Amino acid sequence: ICNDGTHHSGAVQSDPELFDAQFQELVKEITEKDLTDPVLADALKRLREVLLYNAPGGKRNRGLSVIGSLRELVPPTKLTQDDVQRALIVGWCIELLQAFFLVADDIMDASVTRRGQPCWYKKEEVGMDAINDAFLLEGAIYRLLRRHCREQPYYINLLELFTETSFQTELGQALDLMTAPPGQVDLNRFTLERYKAIVKYKTAFYSFYLPVAAAMYMAGINSEEEHNNAKHILLEMGEFFQIQDDYLDCYGDPAVTGKIGTDIQDNKCSWLVVTALGVMTPEQRAELESCYGHHDDACVEKVKTLYNTLQIPTLYQQYEDESYQRLQKLIVCHAQNLSHAVFLNFAKKIYKRNK
Amino acid sequence: ICNDGTHHSGAVQSDPELFDAQFQELVKEITEKDLTDPVLADALKRLREVLLYNAPGGKRNRGLSVIGSLRELVPPTKLTQDDVQRALIVGWCIELLQAFFLVADDIMDASVTRRGQPCWYKKEEVGMDAINDAFLLEGAIYRLLRRHCREQPYYINLLELFTETSFQTELGQALDLMTAPPGQVDLNRFTLERYKAIVKYKTAFYSFYLPVAAAMYMAGINSEEEHNNAKHILLEMGEFFQIQDDYLDCYGDPAVTGKIGTDIQDNKCSWLVVTALGVMTPEQRAELESCYGHHDDACVEKVKTLYNTLQIPTLYQQYEDESYQRLQKLIVCHAQNLSHAVFLNFAKKIYKRNK
Repeated sequence: ICNDGTHHSGAVQSDPELFDAQFQELVKEITEKDLTDPVLADALKRLREVLLYNAPGGKRNRGLSVIGSLRELVPPTKLTQDDVQRALIVGWCIELLQAFFLVADDIMDASVTRRGQPCWYKKEEVGMDAINDAFLLEGAIYRLLRRHCREQPYYINLLELFTETSFQTELGQALDLMTAPPGQVDLNRFTLERYKAIVKYKTAFYSFYLPVAAAMYMAGINSEEEHNNAKHILLEMGEFFQIQDDYLDCYGDPAVTGKIGTDIQDNKCSWLVVTALGVMTPEQRAELESCYGHHDDACVEKVKTLYNTLQIPTLYQQYEDESYQRLQKLIVCHAQNLSHAVFLNFAKKIYKRNK
Repeated sequence: ICNDGTHHSGAVQSDPELFDAQFQELVKEITEKDLTDPVLADALKRLREVLLYNAPGGKRNRGLSVIGSLRELVPPTKLTQDDVQRALIVGWCIELLQAFFLVADDIMDASVTRRGQPCWYKKEEVGMDAINDAFLLEGAIYRLLRRHCREQPYYINLLELFTETSFQTELGQALDLMTAPPGQVDLNRFTLERYKAIVKYKTAFYSFYLPVAAAMYMAGINSEEEHNNAKHILLEMGEFFQIQDDYLDCYGDPAVTGKIGTDIQDNKCSWLVVTALGVMTPEQRAELESCYGHHDDACVEKVKTLYNTLQIPTLYQQYEDESYQRLQKLIVCHAQNLSHAVFLNFAKKIYKRNK
C-alpha cells in the first residue's frame, strides 16, 4: 500500500475503486435488505432511483477524504478491513449529504443542469417531489450510520457531527439566499465579511471539516482541542478553495474546468465582485450596478473588463500566495500531534489547481 | 396535580400552559444563546421567523403527548422539574418535525393555506426558499436534543428515534406521492393495502408511536419487546385516527371541524374511496373515474351521492366499532406492565371525536 492509499499490485483495488464498489453494495443494502416490509417496495424503488441519479457523478473528493485521512491517522497494520469499509461508508454519507443539499439548492436556485445532466427536479416525472427525494437522501445517511457504526465507540460522535454540520450548512444557505436572491441585485449586501460567513457555513464545514473530523473520531481522536485545531486549518482551506472556485468561474479555461461560469449572470456574491467593490471608484460602481446579475453578453463582458481594469487577477495571485503561506503556518502551529500529512494532502490537491 | 397532568391550584401552570411557555424560551435559546458567531445573526433572525410562523398554531396533541405519557409512566414524586422541562422540549421537537414535513408537503401538494394562514412558501418574500427553511426546522430538533438531553442516558435513543421516524415518514410521503399524484386520476392505484401502508408510514409512526416511544425512553423503558408492543397498539390507533380524519373530511360539520374537506377534489387516496371501490359495480366505478379528482361542484356532489348510495357512513360506523374493540384487546394483550392509561388516554381523545 502506498502512502496515498492506492495499491499497485494487480488484484488489489485502490481506494477510489473500493469507494465505487461500496456504493453499489450500499444501494442494495438500504433498498433491498434493510426494510423488508413488502408494502414499502415501491418507496424503496424510488429511493434507489434517487440514489443512483444523484449520489454518484461528482468528484467524490469529500467522500474519499474520509478513508484518505483515516490512513494518515492510523498505521496500516492497525487498520482492519472492517475499519476500511466503515470509512468508505462514512465517506458515502458525506456524498449523500452533499446530494441532499444539491437536489434542494437546484430547486431554490432554479438551476437547469448539474454534473452534466438535467437537475433531478427538472425531470418531467419528478418536479417538486424532488423535495421529498432530498429528504430521503438525508435519511439514508442515518440508516447507513446505524447499520454500520452502531456498535462503534464513535457512533454518537458521528451522529452529532452529521446533524451539526447539516445545520451549519443550512444556516449558510439561508445567509446566501438572503444575500444574493436570484434576480434582485443589491451590491450593498456584498461585503467581504458576509462573503466569508457564507463560505464558512455553506461550504467549508461540510466539505473540509466534516470528512477529516469523521476520520478523527473513527481513529479515536475525540478531544475538543484537537478538533478545534483541525477545524481552524480546514476552514481556512475551505475559504481558499471557494475563492479559487470563484476565480476559476471567471478566469478558468472551460476546456479544463469542464464548465462555463455564470456567477456574474447569476448575481452571485463571489470573491471577485466583493474584492472589486473594495477597490473601485463610485463611477465604476455605478457601471457594475447596471451590469451585474444580467444575462446578456454585453453586460457580462463589461463586468469582466472592469475586473481586468481593477487587476483582479493580480489581487487573486497575491491572495493565493498569502493564503498558502498562512496555511503552512497554521499547520505548523495547530496540527500538533495530528499527522501533518492529513492537511498537506488536502492542500496539495487544492492549491494551484486549474480545474 | 390531577391524573391528566393538569393543575388546578391558582399559580401552578397546566401542561398546555407550560408547553406554550417553553416554546418562547426555546426560540430564544436556539436563535440567541446557542450560536454566538455574530456573522450568523441574519440567518438566526430568519430561523426565528420560520419557527414563529410554522411551529405553533396546530392542535399540539403530538407535542403534549410526550409529557402526558411520561406522567403516566413515572410516579409524580420521581419526576423532577428538569424531567418535565425535557419532556416539554422533546414534545416541541415532535412539533418541529411536523412543521418540517408540513412546510415541504405544502409545496409538493401546491397547497394554499395551512392552519388558517397562507402556507409559508406562498408568502411573497419566501417562495422556494421555504425548502431551506424546512431544513432549518428539522435542524432545530437536533440542536434542542443536544442542548437539553446530551447528558441523559436516553440521548442516543432519542437521536435514533427521531432519525428513524423521519425516514419512515419520508418513505410514506414517497408512497403517497406516487399513489395519488395531483391531477392524475388512476383508481387502480387505490387499494386498501396501499392505503394502510401510506397511513402507517406517513402519519402513524410520527404522530402516535414517536411521542409515546420518546416518553418511554425518557422513563428508562428501552426493551425492544416493550417498544414493539407499544408500536403495535399505537400504529393501530394511528390507522383508526386517519380513517376517521378521512371520514370527517367528507361527513364532518365544517362548523365543528373548522375546515372544508377537499379530498375528493384533490384525488386523495382516502379510506372512503378505497372502501367504495371495494363494494361498487363496474358502472359505478366508471362514474367515479369520471368525477374523482375534479374541482367542479357537480362532480364532487356525484361522488358524495355515490358514497351515500354505497352506505359508506354505515360501513364507517361498523369499522369504528370493530376498531375500538380490537384496540381494547390489543391493549389488554400487549400493554403488559406498561401503564394502560398511556394508551387509554390516547384512545379517549381520538375515538368518537367529531373534529
